[in-house]
Amino acid sequence: MLSVQQISKLIEERISTLDIPKQPAGLYDPARYILAEGGKRIRPCLALLSANLFSDTPETCADVAAAMEVFHNFTLVHDDIMDNAPVRRGIPTIHEKWNVSTGILSGDALLIIAYRLLSSSPKDRLQEILHMFNATALKVCEGQQMDMDFETDAAVELSTYMEMITGKTAVLLGCSLYCGAIAANAKPEDAELLYQAGIQMGNCFQIQDDLLDAFGDNEKFGKKTGGDIIQNKKTYLYLRLLEKANTEDKNIIVDLFSKPTINEQQKIATVLNLYKKYAVEKDALNFMQKLHDDAMNSIEKVPVENERKIILKGFVDTVFNRNY
Amino acid sequence: MLSVQQISKLIEERISTLDIPKQPAGLYDPARYILAEGGKRIRPCLALLSANLFSDTPETCADVAAAMEVFHNFTLVHDDIMDNAPVRRGIPTIHEKWNVSTGILSGDALLIIAYRLLSSSPKDRLQEILHMFNATALKVCEGQQMDMDFETDAAVELSTYMEMITGKTAVLLGCSLYCGAIAANAKPEDAELLYQAGIQMGNCFQIQDDLLDAFGDNEKFGKKTGGDIIQNKKTYLYLRLLEKANTEDKNIIVDLFSKPTINEQQKIATVLNLYKKYAVEKDALNFMQKLHDDAMNSIEKVPVENERKIILKGFVDTVFNRNY
Repeated sequence: MLSVQQISKLIEERISTLDIPKQPAGLYDPARYILAEGGKRIRPCLALLSANLFSDTPETCADVAAAMEVFHNFTLVHDDIMDNAPVRRGIPTIHEKWNVSTGILSGDALLIIAYRLLSSSPKDRLQEILHMFNATALKVCEGQQMDMDFETDAAVELSTYMEMITGKTAVLLGCSLYCGAIAANAKPEDAELLYQAGIQMGNCFQIQDDLLDAFGDNEKFGKKTGGDIIQNKKTYLYLRLLEKANTEDKNIIVDLFSKPTINEQQKIATVLNLYKKYAVEKDALNFMQKLHDDAMNSIEKVPVENERKIILKGFVDTVFNRNY
Repeated sequence: MLSVQQISKLIEERISTLDIPKQPAGLYDPARYILAEGGKRIRPCLALLSANLFSDTPETCADVAAAMEVFHNFTLVHDDIMDNAPVRRGIPTIHEKWNVSTGILSGDALLIIAYRLLSSSPKDRLQEILHMFNATALKVCEGQQMDMDFETDAAVELSTYMEMITGKTAVLLGCSLYCGAIAANAKPEDAELLYQAGIQMGNCFQIQDDLLDAFGDNEKFGKKTGGDIIQNKKTYLYLRLLEKANTEDKNIIVDLFSKPTINEQQKIATVLNLYKKYAVEKDALNFMQKLHDDAMNSIEKVPVENERKIILKGFVDTVFNRNY
């Protein structure tokens, strides 16, 4: 069995040795740029931790793991264009450093490279991996579309929000665990349990993000606290507040979130006060705890020795307890 | 064996019954819109004509054929954004009718749906099909990048142009023939012959396009003749002229193609006169004839009865003789 450190090393090695041609540079330089800039590599890590449950040589699943990371980077490149984001992980986004066409085309190339990595999966399990990956990839597009629709949609329900974040974040974590397991020759029903754990973990991760944006430590989080509030983003906290608030408070917050922010500090303070008044932070923490426990239960049900699960469980806890 | 008409019907049926969800409408309506607007369906037709060489039930390869068309439409959606094209096949492009984000995301969904169609290929041939498709898809991206680079690159060689059109057009025709054959259980070496035929046919098709743009019948072609000249596009005719012209004429044409067009009619007349002076139209026709003959020879070498090849050969001739 490999440790998280060994798995991380394996992933970095695989990603840095991907077969990405030098020419045309306008296509492939941006692809290399975003892959090299790092990030937490959570998805490939999950894929190999999952493979580790069933196999003593998870390194044979490195291509499937790398595919998850390359796909994730494809979504970042295209989402950043759609969201008009100039910076990602502290450096300029591709469409900002080059231009929109470059962002579109090098993103396309990344998606194809992800499929190329998957295509080298064991022949007898390739179709299962592709079915999961195709369904996941479409759900990710649907999640991004819903996210964009939310910007102009006045009446968003918390349940629709959960559907959106399941698409935007959770399904790819589930898919990573699932495909890692299948590539390591797991039974489909065991891979399915891990898929569920990934969904629960992913949703937990996303609500954590909403919390950190509102209440996190600026320096550790790496983003300015209150960014979601300033941008009128409909988060778990905002939608939960709408469910709980009295008419007067509801009107205040709906009004605040329906127009451009003028006084940032004042708006943040007003909204955080309402979040506190209705204890939505506590709701979020309780919900996260439930999602965490559900994920652990799903992993518990996978019929392999407990000893093999320690590293994966530890990883889930790390994600759950993160404060950045 | 199926006729071209039967194959066309099969393709339209498969494309119109693709599993594309209703919601989110912002994602899937544009995907349906571009698939419904038609086009010549050359790629899926080639895939099924190729399958027809090896199988009496080419309809079992309809998903692979449809994948080629869906992929082609994905490239159109993204290319139209990059090329800033407002109209395609007489109707508004997706980014024009909706917006750029919609074009990017629904294009992504089309690419994934293409892979979903391929994933249902026979298990024992799936990997071969994917290897070809992945390599093709990346070459298409490379071709598009080269095409964009050409706009600002003053010194383009005819050989580089051929590489570009091979990527932008020819490889997908080759891939369609190849994958249709493999899905119909052909030997890899026979599919490879058909791939070569597709490359030759595709390049022939593209040079035909350059010719039609300069010398075609406006009404039949559906585009204004001389469009490439007005837009300073480096075509086969332009690059061949540069190879043949004396210094004086070379300076005239390089100068004309390096600045925005002011007097369209005058510019077109000057350039067409130079094309005639150096007989580059004849060069293009000779080259097309060679490509056509090479394609026919490649098909000739495929070890199946001549009778089975009649329809495919007739189709290649139709493409070769088109005047629109």
